[in-house]
Amino acid sequence: MSKPSLARGTRDFGPEIMVKRTFIFDQIKKVYQKYGFLPLETPAIENLSVLMGKYGEEGDQLLFKILNSGDFANDLGPAELESGSKEILRKISEKGLKYDLTVPFARYVVMNRHQLAMPFKRFQIQPVWRADRPQKGRYREFYQCDADVVGTESLICEAEIVTMLHEIFENLGITEFVIKINNRKILSGITETIGAKGKEVDLCVAIDKLDKIGKEKVEEELLQRGFSDENIEKLQTLFNLPTTQIEMFATLKNWLKDSEIGLLGVDELEEIWILVDKMQLNSPKIAFDPSLARGLSYYTGAIFEVKALNVSIGSISGGGRYDNLTGTFGMPGLSGVGISLGVDRIYDVMEELGIFPEALQLSSTRVMVTNFGEDTLARSLETVAILRQKGINSEIYPENSKIKKQFEYADKKNIPFVVILGSEEIEKGIYLIKNMKTGEQNTLTLNQLTEYLDV
Amino acid sequence: MSKPSLARGTRDFGPEIMVKRTFIFDQIKKVYQKYGFLPLETPAIENLSVLMGKYGEEGDQLLFKILNSGDFANDLGPAELESGSKEILRKISEKGLKYDLTVPFARYVVMNRHQLAMPFKRFQIQPVWRADRPQKGRYREFYQCDADVVGTESLICEAEIVTMLHEIFENLGITEFVIKINNRKILSGITETIGAKGKEVDLCVAIDKLDKIGKEKVEEELLQRGFSDENIEKLQTLFNLPTTQIEMFATLKNWLKDSEIGLLGVDELEEIWILVDKMQLNSPKIAFDPSLARGLSYYTGAIFEVKALNVSIGSISGGGRYDNLTGTFGMPGLSGVGISLGVDRIYDVMEELGIFPEALQLSSTRVMVTNFGEDTLARSLETVAILRQKGINSEIYPENSKIKKQFEYADKKNIPFVVILGSEEIEKGIYLIKNMKTGEQNTLTLNQLTEYLDV
Repeated sequence: MSKPSLARGTRDFGPEIMVKRTFIFDQIKKVYQKYGFLPLETPAIENLSVLMGKYGEEGDQLLFKILNSGDFANDLGPAELESGSKEILRKISEKGLKYDLTVPFARYVVMNRHQLAMPFKRFQIQPVWRADRPQKGRYREFYQCDADVVGTESLICEAEIVTMLHEIFENLGITEFVIKINNRKILSGITETIGAKGKEVDLCVAIDKLDKIGKEKVEEELLQRGFSDENIEKLQTLFNLPTTQIEMFATLKNWLKDSEIGLLGVDELEEIWILVDKMQLNSPKIAFDPSLARGLSYYTGAIFEVKALNVSIGSISGGGRYDNLTGTFGMPGLSGVGISLGVDRIYDVMEELGIFPEALQLSSTRVMVTNFGEDTLARSLETVAILRQKGINSEIYPENSKIKKQFEYADKKNIPFVVILGSEEIEKGIYLIKNMKTGEQNTLTLNQLTEYLDV
Repeated sequence: MSKPSLARGTRDFGPEIMVKRTFIFDQIKKVYQKYGFLPLETPAIENLSVLMGKYGEEGDQLLFKILNSGDFANDLGPAELESGSKEILRKISEKGLKYDLTVPFARYVVMNRHQLAMPFKRFQIQPVWRADRPQKGRYREFYQCDADVVGTESLICEAEIVTMLHEIFENLGITEFVIKINNRKILSGITETIGAKGKEVDLCVAIDKLDKIGKEKVEEELLQRGFSDENIEKLQTLFNLPTTQIEMFATLKNWLKDSEIGLLGVDELEEIWILVDKMQLNSPKIAFDPSLARGLSYYTGAIFEVKALNVSIGSISGGGRYDNLTGTFGMPGLSGVGISLGVDRIYDVMEELGIFPEALQLSSTRVMVTNFGEDTLARSLETVAILRQKGINSEIYPENSKIKKQFEYADKKNIPFVVILGSEEIEKGIYLIKNMKTGEQNTLTLNQLTEYLDV
């Protein structure tokens, strides 16, 4: 007889939380569909051959691995035992839980490339799993909400991601946010210009932290990562960029004038600004941030990050363009761009701002019908049946209990109306309805009742 | 460079299938909510201490177990290796994937018992995992759609399950089905009456197969399971029951007259029939089936099974009443009744019958706007932005391609309308719209266009 508990880093979503989460999912889904994205779901379980080696050494370790079924230890001998967890793993586990939605999406595209209408726009809203150390706001099982377009290099897709993000956050009621944008090509251009060509990843990893740890610490890390004093000296332009967008672009063009890829990056960014403008976005909340790098190394073009303002939680969305989504599965050269929304963080932001719509009811039940047993039950059952036939969400209290207990149930469940059917009401053929919020009571006929409750 | 594959027994759900599955989920959810059930989600990952020992020896083996993260083999020595998989498992795995929605629900109820409004009605639509041998129609990862009421013994709940199932299947367009009902108490009464008291489980397992293997084979199995010839002789009444419901109940009452629990079971069933009638169900598709047993041994009252008629697939739903959902977690005596819908089977039934609504579009995009590059792009972008502002799901073709290619994309994606904006249209300020199904073309103003496309 054990006291049951949740696995570390996992959560139950009870009705109250579900209603709010469902609201978020529905809003996101609605906008994704408005932009022409199609739904996709992939399994939780993937072959480790699909997952391993896609997220770096650290990622491989964070994969949840599933034991082979049956007598999994059959093949295990002292030799494997000697050589430790890694060798043993190979013998006893072939499957794992998906770590993100991108790699399974790439697998899906490769396996279905002959059927898909290209460019292929898909959205995917599913849980992913990471064997990370759980802490506040970081879970081992959490949802991602991704939208990606693959099979085109058109910058219209980047611009649409910008307008789409605006629409999603505004629909959710998050009006204060900024979409930070950068371009990996600019980061490449910078490494060329400062004389550290080929060290893009190191530069990215270091300057990605500029916001958090400040310029001095970033320079320290760059030194540790093998950048010279001269490299860092030349990098100063980055730390001292002007503040207006136009001046920024101009300064960059001048700074990176000898780097073809760098200039291309600036051009692409400018083009996105122009396209967004043509899509009639009023006062777009976008900002070019040349220090934005984002960890994942598969990005090759634009990169995005959305920050909610005036809240303690920071980033609520991120994404970017990649030019080789499926190369690792033998289908090179597929370009695409995608965005991922962090539902848990969006939830926290909305809670912190107190902006969940009041109309979100814990219960979708509109009316409860009382139950006073034998003499009145037939009428109560008939009433709830008629209400449901009219499309009104209704329940009958299942037991013949004191009216106080029945009211308490309706109250606790946030049911707005109760129909009281005692022997007096039955005799007179009337329906007594109580508004649970105001306490107001009305005596109605059956027709009046269904009209009264009709939404 | 490996050719990627799906893990055995798992599936991708591409857009076409997603649209149909979403239709099924939405219909089920709508009706569950109409009856006052609240949403719940529990994690995929549960502690093995929660899962093990709940589904019998066989079930324990079908649990997917997750390797402990980090250096999982640290504790592993030759002693464990000697003693085999079972001992090793204890050392290297503490978590597993949930096997059904019922056990996690029980855990949730126990952990939240002080907050829940009792009776607690919840629905839960989530995937579950079983390390079963995959075969046609049997997957290792599949969805369950459960609704349960706990905290009341009221038979109104059973009656509501009956009417709810009717509403769900009729909304889905499955009009030919039968809800088979039995009561575990009747099965107990039968064991008492034939002189085999205490052998309920063996009787259940055997006669559950009556439909599939026939009476002779069932009798063979009963002999193997230790029933005497005399027991089986006395059981003949069961195989020769009259065919009308009323006569059946009468015969049973007479047969089981010396078994208190047996008579109670018949009474409960009769009461459900009466309640369903009071809930105004027209010609209910219910049938008492005394040979219905259902495998799971935790049922103690009514048991249900729904069969779709005129199709090769059989059972599409099952459930029943249990009187001790949470006893194993230290909270005894909690009674409830629940139903589980098999979405994969419902999907197959609907495919076989060809009853998915035609209106289900592969794509939710209503209109695609052409893209002929530079000169026309601004208008195209503006148009798609305006359409979206009007709430119309729209996309712009991302590249400046030949019109044929753009049409092919719209066709493949089942987009019903294309707005063609070439230099001529731009010059004249008009919008040429093509109905992709009929080929009909219309020249419209912007106002006319948004009206034309408004649903």
